[in-house]
Amino acid sequence: MATIQDVAKHAQVGVGTVSRVLSGKGYVKEETRQKVQASIDELNYTPNEMARNLFFQKSGIVAVIVPEVAHPFFAQFVNAAEMVLCEKGYQTMICNTYYEQNYEQRYLEMLKRRRVDGIIFGAHTVLDISQYENIRLPIVALDRDLGKNIPRVSVDHRAGGRIAAEELIRSGCRNVLQFVGAKRGTEVSTPANGRHDVFEETMKQHGIPCRSIGVKWPTADISYYQTVASRLLEDYPDIDGYFATDLMSMAILQSALLHRKRIPEALKLITYDGTNGIGLTFPRITAIVQPIERLASEAVQLVVDLIEGKSVEHRKVELQAVLRPGDTTIKGNP
Amino acid sequence: MATIQDVAKHAQVGVGTVSRVLSGKGYVKEETRQKVQASIDELNYTPNEMARNLFFQKSGIVAVIVPEVAHPFFAQFVNAAEMVLCEKGYQTMICNTYYEQNYEQRYLEMLKRRRVDGIIFGAHTVLDISQYENIRLPIVALDRDLGKNIPRVSVDHRAGGRIAAEELIRSGCRNVLQFVGAKRGTEVSTPANGRHDVFEETMKQHGIPCRSIGVKWPTADISYYQTVASRLLEDYPDIDGYFATDLMSMAILQSALLHRKRIPEALKLITYDGTNGIGLTFPRITAIVQPIERLASEAVQLVVDLIEGKSVEHRKVELQAVLRPGDTTIKGNP
Repeated sequence: MATIQDVAKHAQVGVGTVSRVLSGKGYVKEETRQKVQASIDELNYTPNEMARNLFFQKSGIVAVIVPEVAHPFFAQFVNAAEMVLCEKGYQTMICNTYYEQNYEQRYLEMLKRRRVDGIIFGAHTVLDISQYENIRLPIVALDRDLGKNIPRVSVDHRAGGRIAAEELIRSGCRNVLQFVGAKRGTEVSTPANGRHDVFEETMKQHGIPCRSIGVKWPTADISYYQTVASRLLEDYPDIDGYFATDLMSMAILQSALLHRKRIPEALKLITYDGTNGIGLTFPRITAIVQPIERLASEAVQLVVDLIEGKSVEHRKVELQAVLRPGDTTIKGNP
Repeated sequence: MATIQDVAKHAQVGVGTVSRVLSGKGYVKEETRQKVQASIDELNYTPNEMARNLFFQKSGIVAVIVPEVAHPFFAQFVNAAEMVLCEKGYQTMICNTYYEQNYEQRYLEMLKRRRVDGIIFGAHTVLDISQYENIRLPIVALDRDLGKNIPRVSVDHRAGGRIAAEELIRSGCRNVLQFVGAKRGTEVSTPANGRHDVFEETMKQHGIPCRSIGVKWPTADISYYQTVASRLLEDYPDIDGYFATDLMSMAILQSALLHRKRIPEALKLITYDGTNGIGLTFPRITAIVQPIERLASEAVQLVVDLIEGKSVEHRKVELQAVLRPGDTTIKGNP
């Protein structure tokens, strides 16, 4: 099997020149480049990528860390991130944290050891932010505050919460309920919580009672949602408007239809996220849709810029979620 | 920063002994192991993983190649595979092929260059099987025939197709339609097609007309399913039973409810796959449920066995799909 030395000898150039041709970095005369390429082809030389990456101190891998790939939001996010990373010449490593912090620590170590070139953190885990303060490595946070040094990509969740509240108010709700992260107030700092604060405030401004019920962090376990939803109509018979994320919203709709609730007359529902599957229910659920594919491409662009040593000017990227009217709120002017 | 030589010197052993302690491979006296570990701790030695992996010719990475992670089946499969790989000490790399063969070729090259230790192929791409004939590398196929040398994990799809057909017949269907891969007969060999053959045969045996409509390979693009579903009721007014995969089934249900079809009286529906979200529709769709998590753990076990040089006795793992009765077929004896 041919080595890089064989190629250099065959092309009558130095090993460094072959290296530059292989990496595409550094100046090589076009004529020389062609000569080297011809030798590579003739000797059927396959560079040992691991050795090469060790030489360049690059793994070519970006890790995307999420709570659970099976959750529709993260499935779409990871899907889109992989596509953009692939276009930019990077491979995608994934890690489900299942809300355990140890993986986060492990990946930070991997980053320090250059086993991965960069990390996109989409997990709501609970590592102390101070651990990130002194890190100068390519890390991008999705929907999470990791201190002032770590760039963040997120949606303007406060605006999203306001749109949801206004749509339920416009539809005539008098008594609403929203689902929030289980340990609200104690959990990790995420801008996603902003929507709950604004939702509550907006209801308060309109004199509408608003309950906030804690649920587990996003999970793909649908039996959990079904269990919660099955108790709702009994436990909260007076609620006429719900605000929840996609899988919970589907479970609420299923339970409400099973109990022959008239929708949207007796019960209104708005879902947050707007992942693929939510578009296939009947009645269609009114949704606040997050631009998941754009969140992914912005996160990838930031992490690749950091890896390539470019300055990252916009450290906070904030996109807009939009209302997609469905059949679970009142159409037009009620 | 401490090197492996520093650790060896400090523990008064050879570098090879430190290596064996780090890798956990080869015999080291317990007393010596503890001495080395104490030196590692005292010197705060962090092994350079890439250098170490180069030494052991191991990347510690398994690639999972699927058409599209955003598709519910593959989202669940990748999620479960990552979890089991993580338990076994491997990192998971993912690749969406979007049905293009070039990625398949690229990952085979990566495997040859030991950039990844193994591959789980879950993609229905179209590389010539002969390319796999002479490969003796850790590759496991999900739902796909890659020649006699590549172990395969799949479901007994023929049995799945029979169960679906019998359930529709039992429910009184007189005229059925199933959705099959777009280029049936010309596409890559996958045991998943077996369900369509058996579905058709079973209907034929009962004298029930059965149409087979070609659709795109699984995609997460729901607007595609909605477009197809929206035409169905008009184009095939006489069909009283459908057999489709999850997202298409949801789209059919949505369209049927929109057109006020009585379900299950006027229209029966059975879905194939039984991914998470399909459990949240109303009415609940009768499903043939694939054991996705077990498919993933079996695939991981096989690929890890191959990586570790163990003999893989059961080269074909075939699991069973099961019927989960819902509201879209007739309950009990009709």
